[in-house]
Amino acid sequence: MTALRGVIPPVCTPLTASGELDVPSLERLYGFLLDAGVHGLFVGGSTGEIGQLTDSVRAAALSVAVSTAAGQVPVLAGVIDMGTPRVVEHALTAQRLGADAVVATAPFYVRAGRPEVRAHFRLLASALEVPVVAYDIPANIGYKLPGDLVASLAHEGVIGALKDSSGDLESFRQVLADTSGLDFPCLTGSETLADLALAAGAHGIVPGLGNVDPHGFLRLYEHASRGDWDAARTEQARLTELFSIITVADPARIGPMSAALGAFKAALALRGVIDCPATFPPLLPLLPAEIEKISARLERS
Amino acid sequence: MTALRGVIPPVCTPLTASGELDVPSLERLYGFLLDAGVHGLFVGGSTGEIGQLTDSVRAAALSVAVSTAAGQVPVLAGVIDMGTPRVVEHALTAQRLGADAVVATAPFYVRAGRPEVRAHFRLLASALEVPVVAYDIPANIGYKLPGDLVASLAHEGVIGALKDSSGDLESFRQVLADTSGLDFPCLTGSETLADLALAAGAHGIVPGLGNVDPHGFLRLYEHASRGDWDAARTEQARLTELFSIITVADPARIGPMSAALGAFKAALALRGVIDCPATFPPLLPLLPAEIEKISARLERS
Amino acid sequence: MTALRGVIPPVCTPLTASGELDVPSLERLYGFLLDAGVHGLFVGGSTGEIGQLTDSVRAAALSVAVSTAAGQVPVLAGVIDMGTPRVVEHALTAQRLGADAVVATAPFYVRAGRPEVRAHFRLLASALEVPVVAYDIPANIGYKLPGDLVASLAHEGVIGALKDSSGDLESFRQVLADTSGLDFPCLTGSETLADLALAAGAHGIVPGLGNVDPHGFLRLYEHASRGDWDAARTEQARLTELFSIITVADPARIGPMSAALGAFKAALALRGVIDCPATFPPLLPLLPAEIEKISARLERS
Amino acid sequence: MTALRGVIPPVCTPLTASGELDVPSLERLYGFLLDAGVHGLFVGGSTGEIGQLTDSVRAAALSVAVSTAAGQVPVLAGVIDMGTPRVVEHALTAQRLGADAVVATAPFYVRAGRPEVRAHFRLLASALEVPVVAYDIPANIGYKLPGDLVASLAHEGVIGALKDSSGDLESFRQVLADTSGLDFPCLTGSETLADLALAAGAHGIVPGLGNVDPHGFLRLYEHASRGDWDAARTEQARLTELFSIITVADPARIGPMSAALGAFKAALALRGVIDCPATFPPLLPLLPAEIEKISARLERS
Repeated sequence: MTALRGVIPPVCTPLTASGELDVPSLERLYGFLLDAGVHGLFVGGSTGEIGQLTDSVRAAALSVAVSTAAGQVPVLAGVIDMGTPRVVEHALTAQRLGADAVVATAPFYVRAGRPEVRAHFRLLASALEVPVVAYDIPANIGYKLPGDLVASLAHEGVIGALKDSSGDLESFRQVLADTSGLDFPCLTGSETLADLALAAGAHGIVPGLGNVDPHGFLRLYEHASRGDWDAARTEQARLTELFSIITVADPARIGPMSAALGAFKAALALRGVIDCPATFPPLLPLLPAEIEKISARLERS
Repeated sequence: MTALRGVIPPVCTPLTASGELDVPSLERLYGFLLDAGVHGLFVGGSTGEIGQLTDSVRAAALSVAVSTAAGQVPVLAGVIDMGTPRVVEHALTAQRLGADAVVATAPFYVRAGRPEVRAHFRLLASALEVPVVAYDIPANIGYKLPGDLVASLAHEGVIGALKDSSGDLESFRQVLADTSGLDFPCLTGSETLADLALAAGAHGIVPGLGNVDPHGFLRLYEHASRGDWDAARTEQARLTELFSIITVADPARIGPMSAALGAFKAALALRGVIDCPATFPPLLPLLPAEIEKISARLERS
Repeated sequence: MTALRGVIPPVCTPLTASGELDVPSLERLYGFLLDAGVHGLFVGGSTGEIGQLTDSVRAAALSVAVSTAAGQVPVLAGVIDMGTPRVVEHALTAQRLGADAVVATAPFYVRAGRPEVRAHFRLLASALEVPVVAYDIPANIGYKLPGDLVASLAHEGVIGALKDSSGDLESFRQVLADTSGLDFPCLTGSETLADLALAAGAHGIVPGLGNVDPHGFLRLYEHASRGDWDAARTEQARLTELFSIITVADPARIGPMSAALGAFKAALALRGVIDCPATFPPLLPLLPAEIEKISARLERS
Repeated sequence: MTALRGVIPPVCTPLTASGELDVPSLERLYGFLLDAGVHGLFVGGSTGEIGQLTDSVRAAALSVAVSTAAGQVPVLAGVIDMGTPRVVEHALTAQRLGADAVVATAPFYVRAGRPEVRAHFRLLASALEVPVVAYDIPANIGYKLPGDLVASLAHEGVIGALKDSSGDLESFRQVLADTSGLDFPCLTGSETLADLALAAGAHGIVPGLGNVDPHGFLRLYEHASRGDWDAARTEQARLTELFSIITVADPARIGPMSAALGAFKAALALRGVIDCPATFPPLLPLLPAEIEKISARLERS
């Protein structure tokens, strides 16, 4: 797992105006990120709208990533689903398609308790040859993966890494402390606390905004790697300011995920990386005036 | 939708000891319920462990239901998944396999707001010929379907019925009042408030415990239909007592859903309806001593 | 405790326009309720804005209730506060001022667990001669009093009654079943499920809207007492319709409690029972146009 | 407000074995902290068990602090209560007793919305001459003070500082950014993220564990002030390890606050600073074997 370090963006999944997966845009996006120098690609995360992708779209997006990355950097595949049999099925497909690791949450919808969560990760790991990255994203699944359970599964060899999108740096730090002797990369999903997570010992960052500004997160990571915390903080402040593009939409009209994922895609379209800012249903589109604001903020950044 | 009345159990999905779908047991279970006189079958609800069923198991369980019901009573198919494209795909399959209606929750994982939830049901309905039943189950998806949104979608003709597993009788009652002029069946998923929900005007009940004791819920429904509320309350009290089988397991060892779904299946196995009490992963099995307790309570009931 | 039956409104606390306790209005309000025939007065509940009342206002409101009730009906005193020593202090004062029982929640702010909640009620009861009514109001204190703990404290003789404002009829019903052999009145705080709670066996109702329309709730209670559930349901439907006065305010301008308590007081002022619809800070006032709407709904009811 | 910097422990409130405020122990505790060099005293926070202190105990604890501090360092007084009139009353008392600032949460129990929270702080500030510190402690009051509202009230001059016990560094950082031009100290209540909060720009720290080990937090603060983040992190790791004293109690026997506040007091008693480790009801005592474990960890630290 030592390869899981640095900046690993959770890649957006571009659509055509008619609602199909836009493969040329996806290839350009992977290329844009790889050219910037990212250390890995995470396909099928929340930023990739994994909850809305049908199985065939998931497979296509992953295959393109594997062929584009061509072994230069690891490709992580999100295998997000509710219960263990469904997750195992996704994971076997991802492994077959060439993913270097799979990223799985605790079960959801099934209202699993701690014993069931442990059983879930054990069954998943035992079905696979590639490593399992535990994905802690309580805002999406309504369950916080307990830090001590993560550490215990790490010591048991069931999971090989953590992707923490909980925003709970206290728990994240505890996992870092409790797994310090292992080869167990801990990655943060935070856009706005990336410098602090790295200061706390995080091995890498998985920022959704990294689709839009991979160069900024790479600079941040390099500053942190050199221990230049002032420079890291300055870069972080710039990126946090840019992150405000997710708030331009009217919250009375569309929900926060429509606003956030629409903003990332609008920014990528404005930068010419992808063709169309459409998101998958049920997410709703930004208005032209909102995209104008994003354009202004991109230019200012 | 007038056909959606009465007792419509959310059917369990039996497994063989080796973890495969147990089709003969499933046929016996459908037959047991139909012989008892249930008014419909709901395949692929939470009690059916829908979150854990792979697509092929979902399809098999539904096909057996359609052929066993043979048009005598409606078959409802749960099409539970995260985002709209995935739900539409399940729904088209269910429609093709002969479901009389599909049962869908609001989106989850994607953190949809109210505008996205509305868009989700509209898109789903527009893709289908069979009606959509809205499934309100906040404990599983972390989102309470607002009563006024349900009523609005009902008036718009987007949804044809409600299955309410929220436990919130106040909201349920408001939907009943706000849709009183429509042909819009409102079903409750509660095992322990079925008599009160019927007193409030519910058109039907969808109790998980109805797998184990369909005759009791049918008696309760008949008492209520005749306005014999004392008899309904007495039957309800007996069923509520029986429902305590879901609490025999040690909560320090397994979670509440392992305990509840394991109890339903253990009771069905004890009654000779299905062969094996196994549940789908990540749910964990009951211990023999716990199954003994269930046996004792079944005999007492 | 047998005296705790029937309709026991949680009385509003009227203010003068300059923000002082309005004793003449309070006397008129108590008189209005007693003349209607209520079975008790609950002073210092959430509807009475207990969280905002200083100790001296609490004492004054209670003293006026005791002298106005003059022993005809029981007076219950809310002794709402965070930790045990503060609650005991309020309770001793209430006892001294003549309350027939005190109404206390689980501790809050202190983040008590189940063992601490049990200790809290035991300490409170041991300090008093009057009985303690347990007040279950999770929306206000962030803690649901577990039904089995209520039943256990009832059997132990620590608490003498339950006032349930949880909206959870399943838990309420379980307490009724588990205390059926005791003299342990169970009262519901619901405005809109009062008929169903009575059908489930509730001994009384404590509706905030009972300030505005005590006669309606008394009719509902009498219908239920005679087993005339159709008449009870019809009265309930009328009261539920009237209860919509709590939603006339613009939710973007003021919060739901400003809207609800302001509506009760506005209705009382419109009916001439109290002088001024003001609420205690931080609650914010209704606008004249909103009070117009309340007036129209009152006339229609 | 410029004086609010550095290490400001939220002071414990010692009891005698018979349950009275232990003034000599309290004086020794204040002296211990002042001798260590703390930059202020916060009396009446959650660590001080403010929710359980009667008004007379609150006043006594504050008076002793004011006289012991004797103007060397600022004394902050928690004025924690539910609704505005009660909070104002506490605040006027605290001001009269010599507090340099009062610390107030948003309203609770009353279910205030954003407009009411704003009104609450405005009314409180307008009633006082001393500044108001906003206290964000969602775990205790069930409400997260929105960062943008904090910044807005800061710019308006309503509040003079923030004490953030939310654990949400993202929101905390946003407040820091949005108030950067003001004299608006932002203090963190975290024991385990103190170094990261300081790296993010926090002006001070308010750690409950600072009662037990003020010297450690002072070293941490000094390292951070000099920009020596490696030394800060090392000290933080030692303090985080020591903080595990709050987890020695059996969670099946007593709740987490009994465990945490009991551990602080037990450690202070073991160090000879206070006489007795008792906490206020409803909190429950540690067992001797648990206190043994605390002793071992103190020696190891």
